[in-house]
Amino acid sequence: MEYKNPLGVDIDLETGVIPGAKKLVRRLSDLKGYFVDEKAYEELLKENPVVYEVYAIEQEEKDGDLNFATTVLYPGKVGREFFFTKGHYHSKADRAEIYYGIKGRGGMLLQTPEGKAEWIEMGPGTVVYVPPYWAHRTVNTGDEPFIFLAIYPADAGHDYGSIAEKGFSKLVVEENGEVRVVDSPKWKE
Amino acid sequence: MEYKNPLGVDIDLETGVIPGAKKLVRRLSDLKGYFVDEKAYEELLKENPVVYEVYAIEQEEKDGDLNFATTVLYPGKVGREFFFTKGHYHSKADRAEIYYGIKGRGGMLLQTPEGKAEWIEMGPGTVVYVPPYWAHRTVNTGDEPFIFLAIYPADAGHDYGSIAEKGFSKLVVEENGEVRVVDSPKWKE
Ligand SMILES: [Mn+2]
Ligand SMILES: [Mn+2]
Repeated sequence: MEYKNPLGVDIDLETGVIPGAKKLVRRLSDLKGYFVDEKAYEELLKENPVVYEVYAIEQEEKDGDLNFATTVLYPGKVGREFFFTKGHYHSKADRAEIYYGIKGRGGMLLQTPEGKAEWIEMGPGTVVYVPPYWAHRTVNTGDEPFIFLAIYPADAGHDYGSIAEKGFSKLVVEENGEVRVVDSPKWKE
Repeated sequence: MEYKNPLGVDIDLETGVIPGAKKLVRRLSDLKGYFVDEKAYEELLKENPVVYEVYAIEQEEKDGDLNFATTVLYPGKVGREFFFTKGHYHSKADRAEIYYGIKGRGGMLLQTPEGKAEWIEMGPGTVVYVPPYWAHRTVNTGDEPFIFLAIYPADAGHDYGSIAEKGFSKLVVEENGEVRVVDSPKWKE
């Protein structure tokens, strides 16, 4: 029988970089329509900052195999909304996921298909269990890069469509210097 | 539809403890027959030290769901052999696993069913990908607790039998103050 080779890699704990990983960069222009404040979005688009980078080591899409990736989510806001990742359901919706906070501060917004939302704060050492069926988006609520590790089934896949269309039912915003989770005006049942 | 609840927990990064997790303790007496130097084993058994502790958050054994656990593997030796975890294949042998080094130093010994072994060094920030079919054991080669996080499919299961019987083909030992991976005299094809 042919076996795959084990792999050991050292994450750069300052930058989140995984040597040899596939790198994906998401700039503000890749997040058109995701933020509520369109005027603030257009204004910031002149700079078009990098919102996040992903370093992923992925296997063939086979049941029982596992992928892992770090995300470096930069600090910033569009209007009152903190920078976030697009967020997605899994294409195989019953696939779970585990996140581990490495550096910086933020949190995860989770949501069922019916729009029931939960917010979990994350810092170094926080493990988040994303149960089957929940969409998930991470948010940087701090002032340094928020770096975390995600482990997900190799056959989970990403379903970005419904989040791109309807968003999450909640927004994570700054209000008087505080982090608040509020109802999204864009959310429609 | 009924959904499981998301979970956020903060690992104590000094001790490896996961609050609310199921705790398992393995003392030297639980590792009878695992170390090569039986005389050294019997001698140390008088103290019967804790070799490792596991803090696990596990789900029902369902395809696509994920478990996670920290292990605190204490420093020590039995003769020349460094303290290690029992090591296992997965009952569903094609299930992969991801490890992440949190604190201390050590490594992972991996092995195919035919006895082809690999050794991967681990420290804080090291990710190890355990491919399907490989047995895996962690080893503390340092002088402080070696703490790491493991994420594994909820239906992977543990097959300890064949390792308990035949061991690994390699040993991780101290030789003149150095860490060496050497052939095991106990290994039989
Ligand atoms: Mn995901
Ligand atoms: Mn395992």
